[in-house]
Amino acid sequence: MPRQITAYTNPLVKSVRDLRDKRHRREQRRFLAEGLRILTEAREAGRLPVMLFFAAASAGHPLVRTLVDEVERAGGDAIETTPDILSKLSGKDNPQAVVGVFEEFEIGLADLDRTQAGIWLVAERLRDPGNLGTILRTGDAVGAGGLILVGECVDPFSVEAVRASMGALFTVPVVRCEWGDFLVWLRKGPGQLVGLSLDTEDDYRAAEYAAPTFLLTGNEAQGMPDGYAAACDLLVKIPMLGKADSLNAAVATAVMAYEVLAQQRG
Amino acid sequence: MPRQITAYTNPLVKSVRDLRDKRHRREQRRFLAEGLRILTEAREAGRLPVMLFFAAASAGHPLVRTLVDEVERAGGDAIETTPDILSKLSGKDNPQAVVGVFEEFEIGLADLDRTQAGIWLVAERLRDPGNLGTILRTGDAVGAGGLILVGECVDPFSVEAVRASMGALFTVPVVRCEWGDFLVWLRKGPGQLVGLSLDTEDDYRAAEYAAPTFLLTGNEAQGMPDGYAAACDLLVKIPMLGKADSLNAAVATAVMAYEVLAQQRG
Repeated sequence: MPRQITAYTNPLVKSVRDLRDKRHRREQRRFLAEGLRILTEAREAGRLPVMLFFAAASAGHPLVRTLVDEVERAGGDAIETTPDILSKLSGKDNPQAVVGVFEEFEIGLADLDRTQAGIWLVAERLRDPGNLGTILRTGDAVGAGGLILVGECVDPFSVEAVRASMGALFTVPVVRCEWGDFLVWLRKGPGQLVGLSLDTEDDYRAAEYAAPTFLLTGNEAQGMPDGYAAACDLLVKIPMLGKADSLNAAVATAVMAYEVLAQQRG
Repeated sequence: MPRQITAYTNPLVKSVRDLRDKRHRREQRRFLAEGLRILTEAREAGRLPVMLFFAAASAGHPLVRTLVDEVERAGGDAIETTPDILSKLSGKDNPQAVVGVFEEFEIGLADLDRTQAGIWLVAERLRDPGNLGTILRTGDAVGAGGLILVGECVDPFSVEAVRASMGALFTVPVVRCEWGDFLVWLRKGPGQLVGLSLDTEDDYRAAEYAAPTFLLTGNEAQGMPDGYAAACDLLVKIPMLGKADSLNAAVATAVMAYEVLAQQRG
């Protein structure tokens, strides 16, 4: 049976609220995901929260009931609470019906099987959590094998990244590593490393991609370092007809990924 | 000569800070844009702020000096200030070197010349300011004639939208209108209205686009109403290979727009 928490000052509420901060996530090795859609996506991907907060008013919703049942069966904690406390947990005036606390999960390069997918996404020093989540969401859509985060990237378990991923955090494998380790791993097997660049005449539509294709997206403000570009097997550009010289990082990744997908599907 | 404001409590600072709120923007008919890159983009597009706040430490930067000179020559107000006040204005711990206050500008459907561009972007009930700005940025990149916002959309002059646009707000015409008025205007001349849909078998890569192409993007959560889809000349789908059934709205718009661009450029 779910227990109830209705006191705003309950210490558990504070400790969960703290997961909005990176420092606390790192200490607790847990993160927050909000909303029935994302939590259902997680459940279907085999990831259940260790704690599930839900509004009393939503207790009868079939998806909420399924979540509560499965969380309790797995030994987790299902907690009925108030809209006020859900607001506090989610940091929003109009809170979602459910908020879940998940254990962080992490895999390494060695866990990836590059033969499983034709497209892999690689992002280096990504700064914006919305971009990270959106790239994961696109990764899910193109059937990418995973997202490899190189160097100091924003935390994929941040609330904004989880939200922007719309659940893809639970379905697309994410690896964090350093550039050197990535390159060593990449060159141990087949794989075409493709970078987006301003310094090339090769249009992304005219290039030929060979699976598995690793699409490298550089930092939002600076793009990728010269050394990274030099390590690429192929540099391509996306036409820019206007005043600006770059696209949003998640947009550029998606335009590239869909071109690669179209080629690979023939 | 620029004047100085160093008092945090200066009423002008509060009135400018208030422009972060939609209500105050509506009252003052002004909005904020931040950062040297965006303000320089605006200047090059012929838009100067009526007020320009800049950090004393940045006063020697050539781009800042150009901005200060041009703002003053145009009768605007250039104000040297402190990092603290810039932080207050921009709502960020690490403020930009410059913050500009611009008069809102607005054009109508009648001001658009559809023969000027092969691609036009149309978004209905867009909710997220980051998506709006990112769509503008993509619009600039593909040479779109403009962005037509249909129905109750987020404010294109919000700080987040301006920031995500990276200056494209100043280079890509934006029109706000109702669906009925848009349709009447559209059907007065040539124009293919293309909608993204889950209920079609037509792949976006196999479809044929005819300039001027109007790409319609629906609300982030609900997509477009059935009636809107019925009004389209063409409905297409983007392949979704994963668990999710939709892309981020700005990503979907970009993937479509680049396909149309590729076809139109032959």
